Amino acid sequence: MSSTIGDLGEFGLIARVTARFPETDDVILGPGDDGAIVSAVDRRVVASTDVLVEGRHFRLDWSRARDIGRKAVAQNAADIAAMGARTTALLIGLAAPTDLPVRWAEEFAEGVREECAEVGCTVVGGDTVSSPTLTVSVTALGSLDGSRPVLRSGARPGDRIAVTGPLGLSAAGLSLFESGRSDADAARAAVAEHRSPSPPYAQGPRAALAGATAMLDVSDGLTQDLGHIAEASGVRIDLRRDALVPAPELIAAVELLAASGHPSGGAGRPPREAAVDLMAVGGEDHALAAAFPPGAAPPEGWTVIGSVHEASGPEEARVTLDGRAPVRGGWDHFGR
Amino acid sequence: MSSTIGDLGEFGLIARVTARFPETDDVILGPGDDGAIVSAVDRRVVASTDVLVEGRHFRLDWSRARDIGRKAVAQNAADIAAMGARTTALLIGLAAPTDLPVRWAEEFAEGVREECAEVGCTVVGGDTVSSPTLTVSVTALGSLDGSRPVLRSGARPGDRIAVTGPLGLSAAGLSLFESGRSDADAARAAVAEHRSPSPPYAQGPRAALAGATAMLDVSDGLTQDLGHIAEASGVRIDLRRDALVPAPELIAAVELLAASGHPSGGAGRPPREAAVDLMAVGGEDHALAAAFPPGAAPPEGWTVIGSVHEASGPEEARVTLDGRAPVRGGWDHFGR
Repeated sequence: MSSTIGDLGEFGLIARVTARFPETDDVILGPGDDGAIVSAVDRRVVASTDVLVEGRHFRLDWSRARDIGRKAVAQNAADIAAMGARTTALLIGLAAPTDLPVRWAEEFAEGVREECAEVGCTVVGGDTVSSPTLTVSVTALGSLDGSRPVLRSGARPGDRIAVTGPLGLSAAGLSLFESGRSDADAARAAVAEHRSPSPPYAQGPRAALAGATAMLDVSDGLTQDLGHIAEASGVRIDLRRDALVPAPELIAAVELLAASGHPSGGAGRPPREAAVDLMAVGGEDHALAAAFPPGAAPPEGWTVIGSVHEASGPEEARVTLDGRAPVRGGWDHFGR
Repeated sequence: MSSTIGDLGEFGLIARVTARFPETDDVILGPGDDGAIVSAVDRRVVASTDVLVEGRHFRLDWSRARDIGRKAVAQNAADIAAMGARTTALLIGLAAPTDLPVRWAEEFAEGVREECAEVGCTVVGGDTVSSPTLTVSVTALGSLDGSRPVLRSGARPGDRIAVTGPLGLSAAGLSLFESGRSDADAARAAVAEHRSPSPPYAQGPRAALAGATAMLDVSDGLTQDLGHIAEASGVRIDLRRDALVPAPELIAAVELLAASGHPSGGAGRPPREAAVDLMAVGGEDHALAAAFPPGAAPPEGWTVIGSVHEASGPEEARVTLDGRAPVRGGWDHFGR
């Protein structure tokens, strides 16, 4: 019986990992040849790539293989959604130690399959290689289906900023792992979101149709990511703190963190305030944030949290909270 | 002065690495947003992905950053060419230790840029993350420009098998590194091919136009890779040993290997015979191999090396050399 991917060999592993994916209407040729062929109905393809590394983006003692498969799909499909597009197909590279159990690879593929079902896409290609460091690279392809793309550079003074999807929960989940409280009942929602985020995929194309002028997914933290919109659009974005309303699950997680002395618990500040801080700077939820012009109402499910203003000078803070520069935060993958 | 990519930070590195790429006619939106947008003139996109890992696919003491950048592009663009398509755009993931010199990343990007110029494509997206293991993942997108794709499954009895591009040189180069003779004059061509292969990109679409029924690029070794065509097409492929004519550079490399006692030198057999063995089983040259039906002449630059026959049963060898099963060989990335 094969128990490690080294026993199974490269081609055996590819066969195991790619056998589980359905062919969709977007697939002209699936896995197994030198390349796959994917439909591009409006003569354009949207493409994005992300790399996840063990110890940096996930830990094997904190996340199951299935969660990691789901997360790898989710964060890429969120990028495609943030363009206003629909994810059609994925290509997945898996670099893994030869002693990785075959079962792990199969559960990873199962997670990929589950999240693909949520997204409405499938896997059309991949590569598996041996490496001392477990690494997952995903490229997502998407279709705008005739719509205009929503870039980061289109926000204009007078637009409103709105978000949809969870904020702060993934960061709270990470902190709960760090503080050893991940098994508590009140930790459940945050831990689940950290293990495998649930981006609001369908809201991307909906926002595009509603007239969004700029959009991105919140991967590094709301204020840091909105900074990219502000910079690309040459504007300032002001968020209203009272519009950031923490979910009850987030407040419960923050209370746990406060009780265990973790800094994300707020160091003595009221749990609601600490929760709002996590919403402002916590990354990896992959919520969508967008700008909507006057007269264009955000679709159902979006919450208006701020507004777009003229940038008065290059020195000015790009993103402010109630008119003041927020605490710097966010996630830089090489930062110290 | 920034000297490591850890000092530079993720966004700084992305800016350095993506600033060097020209926008081509195939690019609708380049790097810098959540996703890129690439033109797909005939409503189809070809896609393929590969992962290269330090110590497995390249060694930092044997290959310069520039070679690794070129190789990463080459092996992916070869996959697209093997479908009969033209590579339009690449997405590149770079996972690297934080102490990697910025200069290395810049030279890597320079190699990517150089090979992109050969291919006629550009880089539209990427991701940079920290990892203990230097890992490069590349996804290539391509256009069939209205042509039919050339799959692995189309070879029919009566077809002729032809190849174009170098064979065996990359494997000879690897052996020369192993034997410590990589600095010799006679090693130059083989070592260069191992560091950075030179696939015949334009021959892929040309073979498609000429009527090729099946095609792939030789990444794991000629006989092993032709086995994929034979299996997918349900045929047997017979190669003529005397049609495999080694390049003078390959014979020179094999003579060096023989003198240094490396097994690739042929262990006492004539150098020409050992060179033909390397042509049959050596991988990573990314030559193209294709089947052409009766009456369809392979384009200029292709050499006919064999023929396609009925497969008489599942037990039969898929690929034979002068009617007999060749020595098993080739490259399995998890094989022991």
